[in-house]
Amino acid sequence: MNLPKSVTICEVGMRDGLQIEERFVPTDEKIDSVNRLSKTGLRRIQVTSFVSPKAVPQLADASEVMAGIERRPGVVYSALVPNERGAHRALEAGVDELDTVLSASDTHNLANVNMTTAQSLDRMGGVMEIARRGGVPVVAGIATSFGCPFEGDVPHERLAWVVAGLADLGVAGICLADTTGMANPLQVQQIFRQLVPNYPHLAWSLHMHDTRSMGLAAILAAMEAGVTSFDASFGGLGGCPFAPGASGNVCTEDLVHCLESMGVETGVDLKMLVMTATRGEQAVGHPLRGQILRAGPSTRRYPVPDSVRERVSAR
Amino acid sequence: MNLPKSVTICEVGMRDGLQIEERFVPTDEKIDSVNRLSKTGLRRIQVTSFVSPKAVPQLADASEVMAGIERRPGVVYSALVPNERGAHRALEAGVDELDTVLSASDTHNLANVNMTTAQSLDRMGGVMEIARRGGVPVVAGIATSFGCPFEGDVPHERLAWVVAGLADLGVAGICLADTTGMANPLQVQQIFRQLVPNYPHLAWSLHMHDTRSMGLAAILAAMEAGVTSFDASFGGLGGCPFAPGASGNVCTEDLVHCLESMGVETGVDLKMLVMTATRGEQAVGHPLRGQILRAGPSTRRYPVPDSVRERVSAR
Repeated sequence: MNLPKSVTICEVGMRDGLQIEERFVPTDEKIDSVNRLSKTGLRRIQVTSFVSPKAVPQLADASEVMAGIERRPGVVYSALVPNERGAHRALEAGVDELDTVLSASDTHNLANVNMTTAQSLDRMGGVMEIARRGGVPVVAGIATSFGCPFEGDVPHERLAWVVAGLADLGVAGICLADTTGMANPLQVQQIFRQLVPNYPHLAWSLHMHDTRSMGLAAILAAMEAGVTSFDASFGGLGGCPFAPGASGNVCTEDLVHCLESMGVETGVDLKMLVMTATRGEQAVGHPLRGQILRAGPSTRRYPVPDSVRERVSAR
Repeated sequence: MNLPKSVTICEVGMRDGLQIEERFVPTDEKIDSVNRLSKTGLRRIQVTSFVSPKAVPQLADASEVMAGIERRPGVVYSALVPNERGAHRALEAGVDELDTVLSASDTHNLANVNMTTAQSLDRMGGVMEIARRGGVPVVAGIATSFGCPFEGDVPHERLAWVVAGLADLGVAGICLADTTGMANPLQVQQIFRQLVPNYPHLAWSLHMHDTRSMGLAAILAAMEAGVTSFDASFGGLGGCPFAPGASGNVCTEDLVHCLESMGVETGVDLKMLVMTATRGEQAVGHPLRGQILRAGPSTRRYPVPDSVRERVSAR
């Protein structure tokens, strides 16, 4: 397997996870979670979203959360911004990076932000200008990169057109997002192999949901295509409002565990991350999907049954 | 990705799944499940285990189940046998193949069958002789091939010694089993790359549990090493009695869905399989872990929100 020496994980649970939770997680608990996450060794944390509090009441305290967290040196604290207003608020709050999102398919983009993809691309210019003045980079997420839950297949030309538009705007990175877990590993690898060589200067990343169990396999396939940056959410928080049954993002602990067990460095302390996810379960008030949370790491040892212990020691 | 044109899936839910369920699934429900499974296009079904009813009361009706199922031409109906007595019973019941299992690590083998691995290998001779006289092949599973929940790492020399012993005995195939979900994809690929070339005449297969989310990724990694036969259990039934928190086998529907979406043929009708898994949930009396069961296939389309439909149709 053609594996990189190390990868960067962007923790998106505080945004992509919490935005779909029924319970409003209190501001001080959010701040506590971000502080804990940043101590695990994660180098990128998407802290919140500067979106309308009416649209996403769960993240209405975006500015307070940003103001309250401890900024750990070396950690990039980003936030999702849907528009210029959000970009202004995010910069005022002191984010290190602006994350934007638009959908490759018109129907999903209309459902999400009531604009066509072309309209969203047009609007991105304003956000880019604000970011430039503020001196922070922009990473653009492309939802439905691998298929749309409304339209089905997204033609490659369509995705390539969105990528070209974003590259023209001067984004620092592009994150291909599989919003509803439609992408299969082969498809993910092929799409990155087609796009990355045309834009080698961009920071490419992958945002997989694990809706259909293919999350980790798709990440490995992308790694073999040279991608080294992946979104994940602690505990496996998240889902998609338009896709019932859709489970959350690839779980950060499960991803860290898999990568580290193969010798791919993540810089993340798995034990601390599992403790943070356990607290995350308390914060949202229900069990999370992460499997390392339940099973422990593969280095876990089980007590030898008494009858066996006697036979083993007698040998 | 170096993917095969087609793979064979061995459905093991009726054995590896049911043996750990609290509820005894009535014999006629078992027969119904096997019949449904064999109509999905699955070419290999491990129907039951001819083990002591005291050890595994859930499968005490092994002979009745074998006698009651419809034998679909082209489907291989196998059963797990722990010893010569089980092999006799299985042959009387008319199985097409005997499956055996021993553990690469002594501690796990002692916990499982109260014998060391060497003792189990010795005993295999009797089972092989019975199979030879009965004219059926033997596929030998090696539990803890990728690590032992008691001992930890299993040295490669140890696994290679077990494989050599089984090959000397004349088994038709070897199934490397990751009983408690310890194996990572790279390790799985490396081990198959080391072993398969020495025994190209053997039918090699992989039995993964998805305890730590790595099941599908490991199967893909094994496919790239040339392995084309995989165990899976419908609904993701299963677990391990010695490993609390261990989830079941890789889920057959999730595996079929992933493979077919990449163009790898399984011969399995996903829709029928999902219906069978849904009935399996009723049979065991609790929800199963399979994600396609919940989310549907990636070709599933969601209703377009009304507000969006107007805008899309107005364009």
